Amino acid sequence: MKKVGVAILGLGVVGGGTYQILTNKREFFQRTQNVDITVECVLECNRERALALGVPEEKIMTNIAEVVCNPDVSIVIEVIGGVDAAREYVLAALNVGKTVVTSNKELFCKYSHELERVAKLHNAGLYFEASCVGGVPIIRTLLDGLQANEITSMMGIINGTTNYILTKMSEEGMSYEDALAEAQKLGYAEADPTADVEGFDAAYKLSILASLAFHTKVPFSKVFREGIAGITQEMITDAQKLGYCLKLLAIGKRTDAGIEVRVHPTLVRKEHPLASVNDSFNAVYITGDSVGEVMLYGRGAGALPTGSAIVSDIIYAATHSENRYSTFKNTAEADGDVKFPSDFMSAYCLRIRVPDKTGVLSKITALFAKNDISLVEVLQSAKEGDTAGITLITHETRELAVRNAVEKINALEFAQVQSVLRVVS
Amino acid sequence: MKKVGVAILGLGVVGGGTYQILTNKREFFQRTQNVDITVECVLECNRERALALGVPEEKIMTNIAEVVCNPDVSIVIEVIGGVDAAREYVLAALNVGKTVVTSNKELFCKYSHELERVAKLHNAGLYFEASCVGGVPIIRTLLDGLQANEITSMMGIINGTTNYILTKMSEEGMSYEDALAEAQKLGYAEADPTADVEGFDAAYKLSILASLAFHTKVPFSKVFREGIAGITQEMITDAQKLGYCLKLLAIGKRTDAGIEVRVHPTLVRKEHPLASVNDSFNAVYITGDSVGEVMLYGRGAGALPTGSAIVSDIIYAATHSENRYSTFKNTAEADGDVKFPSDFMSAYCLRIRVPDKTGVLSKITALFAKNDISLVEVLQSAKEGDTAGITLITHETRELAVRNAVEKINALEFAQVQSVLRVVS
Repeated sequence: MKKVGVAILGLGVVGGGTYQILTNKREFFQRTQNVDITVECVLECNRERALALGVPEEKIMTNIAEVVCNPDVSIVIEVIGGVDAAREYVLAALNVGKTVVTSNKELFCKYSHELERVAKLHNAGLYFEASCVGGVPIIRTLLDGLQANEITSMMGIINGTTNYILTKMSEEGMSYEDALAEAQKLGYAEADPTADVEGFDAAYKLSILASLAFHTKVPFSKVFREGIAGITQEMITDAQKLGYCLKLLAIGKRTDAGIEVRVHPTLVRKEHPLASVNDSFNAVYITGDSVGEVMLYGRGAGALPTGSAIVSDIIYAATHSENRYSTFKNTAEADGDVKFPSDFMSAYCLRIRVPDKTGVLSKITALFAKNDISLVEVLQSAKEGDTAGITLITHETRELAVRNAVEKINALEFAQVQSVLRVVS
Repeated sequence: MKKVGVAILGLGVVGGGTYQILTNKREFFQRTQNVDITVECVLECNRERALALGVPEEKIMTNIAEVVCNPDVSIVIEVIGGVDAAREYVLAALNVGKTVVTSNKELFCKYSHELERVAKLHNAGLYFEASCVGGVPIIRTLLDGLQANEITSMMGIINGTTNYILTKMSEEGMSYEDALAEAQKLGYAEADPTADVEGFDAAYKLSILASLAFHTKVPFSKVFREGIAGITQEMITDAQKLGYCLKLLAIGKRTDAGIEVRVHPTLVRKEHPLASVNDSFNAVYITGDSVGEVMLYGRGAGALPTGSAIVSDIIYAATHSENRYSTFKNTAEADGDVKFPSDFMSAYCLRIRVPDKTGVLSKITALFAKNDISLVEVLQSAKEGDTAGITLITHETRELAVRNAVEKINALEFAQVQSVLRVVS
């Protein structure tokens, strides 16, 4: 039986879950995987926290050098989060030839090149399944399950916090503020929710997933990002009337004209498999040229689901002799290949407020025709005083054309574009 | 770059799709996987078929010995289907140390022990991702993605033909016969549809998947099997009224009392992720003790989706030095561990026809109470002459109790149980 000693850096939520799985299921892994995994030490300044989890006193370290120099440790698990210390610790481990397993999306997204280079130099493994979509084995699927495919698009609900908020707003009619407060109360959202609600978290993950799917490095800085803080109950109700629900999607597309990578609130037709992904669940919907459509669904966060991904990486590393890196191509080449937002192709949904007068609707629709935008659907909605709402859904069109149309509508003075949302059918 | 020569045994639908992917994307695999895959020869008696696919004349073989003795072939792809010849050919390949990739669920389900033994003896690899759920990487997920979990249950829609038929019956009100005829016209169902509609195909797959999920060999002969040939439009309409849809589910459960493996028509609550898996799509919904619920969704059959799984296996075999077997434990132990159908635990839906008279309903419900079966819901349905229909849904209960209750109801003479279906909430 193969013996594997691991060290856990940080015993927060994910580190704690990982420790729990490894200690509770040691015999199970011996029996089913023929591997004996022992936690040799942990790096944790909060001694009480470590003791409460049952870590023996002598295994609690506070100095990274003690951890990476421990000859009984062959795999180092980085779950402290953040970038600076995490990067330093991961490099320290790789530099002495230890394999690293990380759940740190921000670190991996920003420094994967450096980490991979150092890992290769020292013949150490580098695994990051837990960095994206928690327990759902999406990295493994992209690297080991769909290799036969040129992936043309991926669309994901890859942030549980925002999906929870949007589900509450849609199903219970809550306001954005109330839904956020409830997410915070349940521990789904941080006190400062910016990383989730402004789409940073989803954009980190999309950068990693798109890089793997499209075999080229798609830098975080090139991911277009729009959050959900501006979403109102009215937008959701309007969407429902038209047969859509509202989701924060992370979208990656490969076209002959380049790669589109974007995170934004999106109307998703109710029949689409992503539309029924609710609460804090995540899902990624992938289209490959051979396999067609594939979707993976599950818990995107949490101590045990993310711990499941980390332990899966440990077992993978222990039972495969080839070291796993992501093998992205160089950044410069990809940079040139990522589209500008104005070149995105999508269907759009526009809500416009206009005076409740004859002829106004035809003026608006004429303006769309002039900008070469054809319309799928037009809905007149509630009157407010002497104004009326119009909701329009376009066929797929270039974002630039929509921006031009919006500018011209707003210049009409009597009309006001209230929201512009992208649409997936 | 690693060079890999492959031989394809059989150029039917899946063999043809595989040949197409391998030849069209040779450069793509060189670039993205650093592996050069060439089809060195094919085994195909129908020369015309091979030539039509573009196979060069000199690569078309009709003798298995020529194929397995070809020194340029390191991986043999078995896609001829059936059991006898396929087994002989696979053993011939393994016996000379060639790695085998197969899509043959019946072969793998019935002979995995023998094939694994011979493969290990000759240090050859044995891969079978394509045997279950087409392009969806379910085997890889069980073996390489969810290893951290004790899997407690899996529920799958793993036969596209029956899902297509049930979708047509549900959405368009078709009769079973008409829906089957349409499936045959579209090539989804064979002229003799028995393997699909009687659940054999799903049972082969469930035997393989449950064996992997529960780390023990679950023999095909132990899988309880009930097909969809008896499903009527009325059953579907009744289910819809109660908020369910009807699916052919393959269910594997591990409980302290043993393993349940069963394929049968099932009422699935409309909110369940499996309920929206329609047409010929497949999905597997897995519950693990760490990861919680995970679902994989995609195309379960077809030339290119299944070809995607085969090529994924080829690339996996070419880029990993450890040979992949399923490593089931021995059959005898598992046999003892599989539950008898009468011990299954499930919720049930019963349709009973009774005289339209006062007091009948209370007699029936009293009978359930006497058998320790508690009811979730009771629905009175359409009258026919002087009889009425009652539909009852039970809480989770032992199958034996339900069978007893059914026997006693039928013994009442005035009442007649018309259907018994299992229910998933």
